[in-house]
Amino acid sequence: MVDVERSLQLIKRGCDELLIEADLVERIKSGKPLRVKAGFDPTAPDLHLGHTVLINKLRHFQELGHHVMFLIGDFTGLIGDPTGKNVTRPPLSREQVVENAKTYKEQVFKILDPEKTEICFNSAWFDALGAAGMIRLAAQHTVARMLERDDFSKRYAGGLPIAIHEFLYPLCQGYDSVAMRADVELGGTDQKFNLLVGRELQKHYGQQPQCVLTMPLLEGLDGINKMSKSLGNYIGISESPREIFGKVMSISDNLMWRYYDLLSFRDLAEIARFKQEICEGRNPRDIKVLLAQELVERFHSRSAAEDALTEFEARFRQGVLPDDMPELTVASEGVAMSVVNVLKLAGLTVSTSEALRMVAQGAVRANGERVSDKGVAFAPGESVVLQVGKRKFAKVQVV
Amino acid sequence: MVDVERSLQLIKRGCDELLIEADLVERIKSGKPLRVKAGFDPTAPDLHLGHTVLINKLRHFQELGHHVMFLIGDFTGLIGDPTGKNVTRPPLSREQVVENAKTYKEQVFKILDPEKTEICFNSAWFDALGAAGMIRLAAQHTVARMLERDDFSKRYAGGLPIAIHEFLYPLCQGYDSVAMRADVELGGTDQKFNLLVGRELQKHYGQQPQCVLTMPLLEGLDGINKMSKSLGNYIGISESPREIFGKVMSISDNLMWRYYDLLSFRDLAEIARFKQEICEGRNPRDIKVLLAQELVERFHSRSAAEDALTEFEARFRQGVLPDDMPELTVASEGVAMSVVNVLKLAGLTVSTSEALRMVAQGAVRANGERVSDKGVAFAPGESVVLQVGKRKFAKVQVV
Repeated sequence: MVDVERSLQLIKRGCDELLIEADLVERIKSGKPLRVKAGFDPTAPDLHLGHTVLINKLRHFQELGHHVMFLIGDFTGLIGDPTGKNVTRPPLSREQVVENAKTYKEQVFKILDPEKTEICFNSAWFDALGAAGMIRLAAQHTVARMLERDDFSKRYAGGLPIAIHEFLYPLCQGYDSVAMRADVELGGTDQKFNLLVGRELQKHYGQQPQCVLTMPLLEGLDGINKMSKSLGNYIGISESPREIFGKVMSISDNLMWRYYDLLSFRDLAEIARFKQEICEGRNPRDIKVLLAQELVERFHSRSAAEDALTEFEARFRQGVLPDDMPELTVASEGVAMSVVNVLKLAGLTVSTSEALRMVAQGAVRANGERVSDKGVAFAPGESVVLQVGKRKFAKVQVV
Repeated sequence: MVDVERSLQLIKRGCDELLIEADLVERIKSGKPLRVKAGFDPTAPDLHLGHTVLINKLRHFQELGHHVMFLIGDFTGLIGDPTGKNVTRPPLSREQVVENAKTYKEQVFKILDPEKTEICFNSAWFDALGAAGMIRLAAQHTVARMLERDDFSKRYAGGLPIAIHEFLYPLCQGYDSVAMRADVELGGTDQKFNLLVGRELQKHYGQQPQCVLTMPLLEGLDGINKMSKSLGNYIGISESPREIFGKVMSISDNLMWRYYDLLSFRDLAEIARFKQEICEGRNPRDIKVLLAQELVERFHSRSAAEDALTEFEARFRQGVLPDDMPELTVASEGVAMSVVNVLKLAGLTVSTSEALRMVAQGAVRANGERVSDKGVAFAPGESVVLQVGKRKFAKVQVV
């Protein structure tokens, strides 16, 4: 007997939208493993936590005994940017796709069970489809309905060009679902339109239309913008234990709960208990440590997680960073500035001679590391957390 | 030395638009044979004179020494109607395409020189293009520019569906020009947009863009609507000499000049002389006979043209059909009506007994044929020219 209630709770955890829930319930009740699909771009195999939101959801399905299909969209990757305007998107070679797939596997199998994961490449069916098949596919949708997609309608209304092949990509994604006989497709909230195209194409091909599960886009370390490499607000899953640990510790308490929801595999009851404990006075930092440890363990190992914690605590054993640490800028006149001068200008010492004395006493730390050399200097643009003794802190930006 | 003046006159004869004339002149001057393309639908090999307007133009190019490419659009024919909504357009099989091509050749080689005509099938390059190539092709045009095409913009504005593959067909037609390295493409005026897409794609593929020559759509026997099978106002090139001859003789004098322009191979000076002769009193019927003979000779033989004339004259030796013949309708109450009743109701006889007497005397003709049996009847929907004696005529529609 399938525990439908439990399945549904796990599947819906953190999700933005589930279509159509009643249909999904029916399929779960059937007891037959669902064919669960998520598609990934073959050009970006260097994953960050934002990418793992979907992969975690695949893992939920895997835990529930369903069949997970990890689709690498190599067909469009082999095409690149066909307008030729985007020099940063050259076509990939078959060799690159194979290489990227290897890198993908190394990363996603830190989350998914390799024994229970089918890796798919959509070139398999698109190479067979041919130009005629592409025309037949294009016949299954109208221009007007495609223009209803939010980004298309905005661009069309704004007089910005939409190349016709952009209308074909959602159809290709939908045809993937047909070829894979997907019961469920996962995607970001920005993918909803494309996921629904898959439903229509499946109907046309005589299949029961897939259920659609959209996941929110994960906020980056700033808690505001979507996590992305170009914004620098990301945690890469191949980063060192120390980096992952430190970055998790740097997020706000609010964002921590969001990450618990979307990134942790602790169950919801446990997370609720954590919240309760904080209400009763527990330091949120303890809970953040648990999250940081869980993520380091996932992408490295249990012992790496322990080491990272020990190191983190050692670094800050002089005292925890206060929440209300002042943030200052000091003007450098364009050249690197010695730690002694920075300490004085930041008001952490009353004079440069006091600063020199503090360094000599081993009472100064920069980013948690003891400063033992008075010659240490900071370049314009550098940002550093300075600590003098146990209680004086400042985050200083050299400008 | 190429006679550019003469070439241009022949090429432009009857045409609607030539783009770009200066460019065409340059290419003619080069002395290199032009690669001249016209595309034909593989599903309709039963040609009528309307189709021959383009084929005649290809012949003009052939006469001028250029390389004529007769393209059979079998690629899209093999797809059929991919929406599945049009049951009258099922996909063709390869065998049907081959069979249709044979029928095409039999017909077009009555006009074109088989030795100088290249028959092309676009499946040759589209089969090689693949789904990826189709996407690359689609990237070469924007949605907004495609929606500028007259019929698309009207349908979009009117809320009528446009399936996305309809955007691909103009691109396919344009890609034909790339694959065929066309210097000139001919098409109906309704094809102008698609012909211009060919120019753009050629530019993209590093070719000099083709010149575009549009020909008007030929009016049918009624002189108003476009010649078409479904309207019944056509002359099929496989019709009997007698049918072709008779139908040409039935057209108006105005339409005759149009047909001379677009269908006759007589030179323009000779046609101008005919017009002059009519101004000076010659019966236009004599000139129409020359056109009818030319067309019967083209599609049958010289002797068939002479026989058709003899027979035509014999049939109407009782008198020519007057230009102001009355047109009447008689109500049949839904069942076939005897010639005797029709004659009376049409006022060609004063009574049914007079009608019976006239039939008995052999004084009644239906469509020029003597009526010797009073049992002859006309079904609702039938139209017939009835003649009693030498001077009484009426064109009667049974409704």
